[in-house]
Amino acid sequence: MAMHQLVEYTDASAEVRAVYDDIMATRKTDWINNFWKAIANDPATLRRTWESIKQIMAPGVLDPLTKEMIYIAVSATNQCPYCIASHTASARNKGMTDAMFHELMAVIGMANETNRFASGYQVEIDEQFKQ
Amino acid sequence: MAMHQLVEYTDASAEVRAVYDDIMATRKTDWINNFWKAIANDPATLRRTWESIKQIMAPGVLDPLTKEMIYIAVSATNQCPYCIASHTASARNKGMTDAMFHELMAVIGMANETNRFASGYQVEIDEQFKQ
Amino acid sequence: MAMHQLVEYTDASAEVRAVYDDIMATRKTDWINNFWKAIANDPATLRRTWESIKQIMAPGVLDPLTKEMIYIAVSATNQCPYCIASHTASARNKGMTDAMFHELMAVIGMANETNRFASGYQVEIDEQFKQ
Amino acid sequence: MAMHQLVEYTDASAEVRAVYDDIMATRKTDWINNFWKAIANDPATLRRTWESIKQIMAPGVLDPLTKEMIYIAVSATNQCPYCIASHTASARNKGMTDAMFHELMAVIGMANETNRFASGYQVEIDEQFKQ
Amino acid sequence: MAMHQLVEYTDASAEVRAVYDDIMATRKTDWINNFWKAIANDPATLRRTWESIKQIMAPGVLDPLTKEMIYIAVSATNQCPYCIASHTASARNKGMTDAMFHELMAVIGMANETNRFASGYQVEIDEQFKQ
Amino acid sequence: MAMHQLVEYTDASAEVRAVYDDIMATRKTDWINNFWKAIANDPATLRRTWESIKQIMAPGVLDPLTKEMIYIAVSATNQCPYCIASHTASARNKGMTDAMFHELMAVIGMANETNRFASGYQVEIDEQFKQ
Repeated sequence: MAMHQLVEYTDASAEVRAVYDDIMATRKTDWINNFWKAIANDPATLRRTWESIKQIMAPGVLDPLTKEMIYIAVSATNQCPYCIASHTASARNKGMTDAMFHELMAVIGMANETNRFASGYQVEIDEQFKQ
Repeated sequence: MAMHQLVEYTDASAEVRAVYDDIMATRKTDWINNFWKAIANDPATLRRTWESIKQIMAPGVLDPLTKEMIYIAVSATNQCPYCIASHTASARNKGMTDAMFHELMAVIGMANETNRFASGYQVEIDEQFKQ
Repeated sequence: MAMHQLVEYTDASAEVRAVYDDIMATRKTDWINNFWKAIANDPATLRRTWESIKQIMAPGVLDPLTKEMIYIAVSATNQCPYCIASHTASARNKGMTDAMFHELMAVIGMANETNRFASGYQVEIDEQFKQ
Repeated sequence: MAMHQLVEYTDASAEVRAVYDDIMATRKTDWINNFWKAIANDPATLRRTWESIKQIMAPGVLDPLTKEMIYIAVSATNQCPYCIASHTASARNKGMTDAMFHELMAVIGMANETNRFASGYQVEIDEQFKQ
Repeated sequence: MAMHQLVEYTDASAEVRAVYDDIMATRKTDWINNFWKAIANDPATLRRTWESIKQIMAPGVLDPLTKEMIYIAVSATNQCPYCIASHTASARNKGMTDAMFHELMAVIGMANETNRFASGYQVEIDEQFKQ
Repeated sequence: MAMHQLVEYTDASAEVRAVYDDIMATRKTDWINNFWKAIANDPATLRRTWESIKQIMAPGVLDPLTKEMIYIAVSATNQCPYCIASHTASARNKGMTDAMFHELMAVIGMANETNRFASGYQVEIDEQFKQ
């Protein structure tokens, strides 16, 4: 149903294959999900996006699972079905338990609620928060 | 500039004061930020919101700092200035370093970017993500 | 601070003045708020927007106050400060009490919360809702 | 296709069943829609969400149908397919006619349009709206 | 699966048919897409929306293809699957090449990313941008 | 009022200065706007974001002005005041006239309106749009 042909490994250029190979090696997996096959129609975007994600989602002062949960928070807020499905799967692979998912969703829901109280009640920022 | 009078402690009803007291005791602080003073115009919403936040933001399988960062992810995605300011302050109080904030923002930015690639390229959800 | 000059009545073309006159007559008021003065830089948009709003916000099977509250629901969800301020003022002019505003905000907040539970939990639409 | 098992009544714990029973009694219906079965995976969220919705959506100074239409306004603005489908069905059950739905949608559309004019034209809030 | 009956040409009133005829004549096509058949349930909205779109999307100082790409930018940002599908098809009909679509998507993605850096880092507007 | 210290050129590390120099050279300007000074607190994000924007916003099959207008479309849809102000200024520098801005805003507004009709009326994607 997608309007954009998915670029399969066997049909991919050497440039695209190099990114696919790096994705599979980095993620220790043997398949490429549709997101990458779709943006592979634009090799420049494929490469730039993968290089950025690889760098950003790597272990840092935040661990990879925390980063996946932040990804889910953004994706659920934006109502992006693909992103929710793929990053929930990734988070589970990195150890997210049911209990963690439930707390994550509770925070996402509450934040989306209070964001609208803050705007609707036209709350001004406290001086204490400006330093 | 706010259209809604802020309910100060000295002017508050006993019902509102009870919530204010619990907020200050729970957070080990001696002041109430404008968000609560604004929604205190509706004591039922004040109480329900505080009870929910108190329960949701408490230590669980996710630690309170992780929860604050998830709150920031939602608030930055929604472009809520008050929420970003207040939860960034809360996260700092709970130990968020500059380095943690930077990684947090990098993930938020990247997720907002790839959310639009997923929608714009009309990517279908992989069967592997549906189990 | 606005980048777009506001078009004041005294400086307006006959075409713009005609719209301003109709706004003031329809709303039984003697001033024009900044929104109209800003989009008056584009008389075609001014006219089309006013004609649409005049038609849509008029009494119908929904009363004008209900329509203003729906406007607030959209504006608070979108985090549009100008729209929240102006439509809250309009709703008050049309009879919105504090109690009504509080219930309105409670629904807006709850809807924004459960919208994310529905997306985050990837809930499928029930067959019963498809008829 | 949902990643989260739906909790059916027959498989539910006593705690979850108690909420399901209250939902069916309150709504005078004999079935539970998928939203509740999905969040029932987290009984604490199920209970808190139901208690809040039951309180917020009850008749108050705003009638239940008006509240459902506000719910639709938020859900359509957020592009939440499940929420639009379920709350449109609820609104119809509470008496929303085709004509009411059409006026509701016209206001939602117009509000989403003018919200962007206000932001894009960088309109400053009038002093009159700040009191 | 849609809750709203689509209004087919053969079943349409004279008022609706007149709009359908104008859509097909303007677009030099012999079919009507579902969007119009859905909102045709409300002839007033059908007419107003078509008249506005016809005027707005016509060649002006911006060409029609540029306007379609702006439509895609809004639709991908809002996560509206129908709108993305229909306006991507329209843009292709007006000459959007794969290369153009790729650049368009790259800008949309980047803008959505930096929008969150601006909010999350609480960046103040430069004086130079206020004139 | 910003919570994050702006990194001025004179206080910047060599790494940050190199990016600032490239921004000014590329844009043929002698100042750095606050956005860059804010994210310069995280040199890795500064560099990655600038490299991406430099590549994406360069002349391609779409001209730089069209790209700036797409940026405005996203920013107005997201209600990001900083982004709207800065990219409107950039677009003007690249030749956007008042008339072009007016048409741009008209399309943005209309797209945000019809996006909600598509979701609210639950319109299914036409088969013709799926090829």
